[in-house]
Amino acid sequence: MFDDFFRKQTVPGKTKIAMLILDGLGGLPPEPDGKTELEAANTPNLDALAGKSALGLSVPLGPGIAVGSGPGHLALFGYDPLECEIGRGPLEALGVDFDLHPNDVAARGNFCTLDENGILTDRRAGRLATEKSKILIENLKKIKIDGVEIFLESVKEHRFAFILRGPDLGSSLTETDPLITGTSPLKLKSLNAGSERTAEIVNQFVMQAQNMLFNNYPANMVLLRGFAKLPIVPTFSEMYKLKAGCIAVNGMYRGVSRLAGMDILKVDGITLADEFTSLEKNWSEYDFFYLHFKKTDTCGENGDFEGKVHAIEEFDGQLPRLLNLNPDVVIVTGDHSSPAILRAHSWHPVPLLIYSKYCRTDAIHTFGERACAKGSLGHLPAKYIIAVALANAGRVAKYGA
Amino acid sequence: MFDDFFRKQTVPGKTKIAMLILDGLGGLPPEPDGKTELEAANTPNLDALAGKSALGLSVPLGPGIAVGSGPGHLALFGYDPLECEIGRGPLEALGVDFDLHPNDVAARGNFCTLDENGILTDRRAGRLATEKSKILIENLKKIKIDGVEIFLESVKEHRFAFILRGPDLGSSLTETDPLITGTSPLKLKSLNAGSERTAEIVNQFVMQAQNMLFNNYPANMVLLRGFAKLPIVPTFSEMYKLKAGCIAVNGMYRGVSRLAGMDILKVDGITLADEFTSLEKNWSEYDFFYLHFKKTDTCGENGDFEGKVHAIEEFDGQLPRLLNLNPDVVIVTGDHSSPAILRAHSWHPVPLLIYSKYCRTDAIHTFGERACAKGSLGHLPAKYIIAVALANAGRVAKYGA
Repeated sequence: MFDDFFRKQTVPGKTKIAMLILDGLGGLPPEPDGKTELEAANTPNLDALAGKSALGLSVPLGPGIAVGSGPGHLALFGYDPLECEIGRGPLEALGVDFDLHPNDVAARGNFCTLDENGILTDRRAGRLATEKSKILIENLKKIKIDGVEIFLESVKEHRFAFILRGPDLGSSLTETDPLITGTSPLKLKSLNAGSERTAEIVNQFVMQAQNMLFNNYPANMVLLRGFAKLPIVPTFSEMYKLKAGCIAVNGMYRGVSRLAGMDILKVDGITLADEFTSLEKNWSEYDFFYLHFKKTDTCGENGDFEGKVHAIEEFDGQLPRLLNLNPDVVIVTGDHSSPAILRAHSWHPVPLLIYSKYCRTDAIHTFGERACAKGSLGHLPAKYIIAVALANAGRVAKYGA
Repeated sequence: MFDDFFRKQTVPGKTKIAMLILDGLGGLPPEPDGKTELEAANTPNLDALAGKSALGLSVPLGPGIAVGSGPGHLALFGYDPLECEIGRGPLEALGVDFDLHPNDVAARGNFCTLDENGILTDRRAGRLATEKSKILIENLKKIKIDGVEIFLESVKEHRFAFILRGPDLGSSLTETDPLITGTSPLKLKSLNAGSERTAEIVNQFVMQAQNMLFNNYPANMVLLRGFAKLPIVPTFSEMYKLKAGCIAVNGMYRGVSRLAGMDILKVDGITLADEFTSLEKNWSEYDFFYLHFKKTDTCGENGDFEGKVHAIEEFDGQLPRLLNLNPDVVIVTGDHSSPAILRAHSWHPVPLLIYSKYCRTDAIHTFGERACAKGSLGHLPAKYIIAVALANAGRVAKYGA
């Protein structure tokens, strides 16, 4: 496997790499010959950097595949998203930006409806409205069980994320959701000795939740399924010999970064400028910085073309603060595309720029989808971006004589 | 596996393919927007050929990986360098340009230091100076053992390559290097019956070497490890139904070519012009010619930008001698990049040109890194170059009906 091979080839160094991720960066023009969000944005700093960089298009997972931010980031960090799967529970938690820790056990929760005999009549409690669901969640948060922290996060309608944090938790567990109506919810069972106490905790929680929800028809019970921890993957330190720091405001990105063994760096505030301040403060302490900018994706998903253009311009305005630190390698790309006209993540490959003194430039002096399509990095699978960056940073040994 | 598949698809033919390898061809511009060595060189013949060719960038092994010439050439010959690994001993021999034969047994040698009790005190003999090591090697060459030829090649400091050539040698052997100090060197043991005689030969050699080095503190003993033969791989004849000839001045390239089942063609002299003379002389006898030009890499590794430019121009001057022979397919590329500004092999993909009457040209009339980045062959893994060349030579059958 290339990944294992690559791990053996990396060598320590003193160079610094910054990976700047504009979430959902790739876009589409509103009309065929028009400009994408990135092409429409006024980005003098990105354009100047492009002229000193190698350009290409990053392919998050494969042709035609739109990825979520979880797999999108796993790929950017050099993991194969198909080999390193995130379970349903952790996915639900990360998906609502919960800051999941490596030993947390997470499950996907539903509010559901039981009849007077305890028989399940609706697995989704009539698709309970999100506002109502949130009130119930706040109530359920009062449940305390010794030796464990319980976190609950409303997702949408009847759905919520359920997370346990504490020592010695196991995730080899059955599910309480029978997946069909006309039967009772199941009692949770452990599938190995290490998960027995966890099963007891969950069953206690479910019992207390049922008591609390007793008079709350149609949402008078909860179902839990997809128990899992985050997968265990080799860290940045193990794979790349990099001391890595994550600068992200949203929990999901911190969660995936923690999985990769990055330190989560303190950001005072929530703006991109605050993130760049954290970058400056921590510059001397790390070899690798991952900096995440959410607004581009948010605007894309909201169908806000102009908002996304402005977000990109905001990023462009901050970029010199990194360049002034003299990084050896700079990566600018996204975890996936989120064209405003689609109001969703899309399958389109993502503009990619890798700057270093040794990158072999493309003589292309603009950063955009069509400029990048002509770049010498070609269509680069996202999981290899870190390999190219490490090579540019002088951190990969020659293979063979 | 694609290789097996491909092998079944090839058919015999009368067409001729010439693969011209400029070692370390790919380069970098001294400043971001400047020209690379190849772009700076005046290459009217290559440029004219580019206009009739398909262009692209060859990826020797994978993104971010700088390869040695060994794996680089294995890929160019259609082998997967990770599946077809060259052992430590053969690597050491090829690395100093030793002309290794398929049944040679090679090991990596160290001069080391023993105390008066025969206990190893320094595995590297104080990193003995290369000049001193060379003198000792000349001495050790006097050791003769019946039924086998022994070759010794100084590598660097305390290191040397040890090669046995003769009938019925085996390489299933332990090592004499205990890898730690404070213990005695180990007696070599065979791991199967076919290697018993070889173990005896090596132990005899080590005993004689110890006697010779007795008064030569700190280099008073040798250690040998990494015994191996070249891997056994299917030949050009078996895989591609090609009668193939190698035209190379340096031993390493002849070694890898012999591994691939090529005939090593006589070159009268050591210049590129001499190599082209050999090509002309042997033209009628072979289907496939591999011609190797070392100077581009040597200049790259020496940081000699201008020298590399001139080497490329020297190549350009010889190219018409091949074209006058009316080859059906011409490949021009390198085994890896060696930018003069890096003074080393690098990870950058390598300019690639494939000419045939049927190649589908790119209407690009120049041969260079940035021109090739726009070519229709895209980023082509080096191991598939031969497949495209064979197809262009009409030597690959249609798959399926």
